[in-house]
Order: sequence, then structure tokens, then C-alpha cells
Amino acid sequence: MFVHSVYFWLKEKDNTEAQQALLAGLKTLESIEAVHTAYVGVPAETRRPVIDHSYDFSLVLVFTDQAAHDIYQEHPVHLKFVENCAHLWDRVQIYDAVLA
Amino acid sequence: MFVHSVYFWLKEKDNTEAQQALLAGLKTLESIEAVHTAYVGVPAETRRPVIDHSYDFSLVLVFTDQAAHDIYQEHPVHLKFVENCAHLWDRVQIYDAVLA
Repeated sequence: MFVHSVYFWLKEKDNTEAQQALLAGLKTLESIEAVHTAYVGVPAETRRPVIDHSYDFSLVLVFTDQAAHDIYQEHPVHLKFVENCAHLWDRVQIYDAVLA
Repeated sequence: MFVHSVYFWLKEKDNTEAQQALLAGLKTLESIEAVHTAYVGVPAETRRPVIDHSYDFSLVLVFTDQAAHDIYQEHPVHLKFVENCAHLWDRVQIYDAVLA
């Protein structure tokens, strides 16, 4: 399995339209066939010094392998998401992992 | 669902014994009943400026809800893991998310 985790920080954190637009964009990614499991999220209420809850949206996508992830990266729905939504975020942080 | 993602940076990155000890500890967490799905990983080979591949191990745990996550946090197997392995890591970064 290949786990692709992405955290998004909006340019305008409190802009409801920006929030809704990014969320709608993230939801389109769930339908891509190469995606095994998708979790589109927002920060939970947990608070500890080691927890970063400053992000606005998270996207955790599980793929069967890196090949499926690579197909996702080039998928028209993903490219369209980036085209439509990249102006909304100030920062993106990604962690990619393969099972140990 | 509640997604608990943890990234670990070892004190001694190239110490094989430390790597094996942390990996073995992480694997014990998979058996905790409150955990719905567990992904214990290492950095994938993807390289882009927005990807942080500097960590040594990742742990992505999916719970049905925050209550299950809270049970996990206090579970003896988790507490034992922290007791046994906390000296191995230099830094831990956590992101907790609930489905949007």
C-alpha cells in the first residue's frame, strides 16, 4: 500500500467560499478509480504540543501501490483540481509512505 | 472516521537497532482493538519540494470516531509503546483529522 497524506493551509482561512471550494475540489478526488481509500478531513479537536492543528483541510489517499499513486497524479480529475484550487492555498505539506 | 497520522524522526537515523526497535513497537499498535485500520510506513521514493521525506517512520491509524481514538491513547499496548520507544525519537509530528 502507498499512503499519500496532504495538508492544506488556505490563503484566507476564514473565507467560507474558499473553504467550500477547496472541500468540493477535494471531494472530486475520491472518485478517481486509482484511489483505494480516501479520507478528506479537517482538524480534529485534539490539542497537544506535538499535534499540528493549524491546517485547514487534509487529504489522506491510500493506493494499492506507487503505480496507482502515479496514475492518480496525472489523472485529469486531479489535474483539474490543482488547476481550479491551487490559488486557494498558501501552503501544502505532503508525506508519502509505503508500508514498512 | 478519525484519522491519526504520526511522523517519527529518530535520534539516530542510521542506527539499525533503533529502526528495528521503533518498527517493532509500531507494529504492536496494529493489534489494538480500537484501531480500525493501521498503516505503518517509511518514506516513499517520491521527491518534490512539497513532500517531506525526512521522517523515518509513519503511523496512520484510522478509527471509527474520536472515542475509539481516545481509547487507543490510553490503551496499555499504546502506553507500553511510548514507554519503550520514546527514547528512540527526536521528534514526533501529529495531524488528527475528522472527515469533512
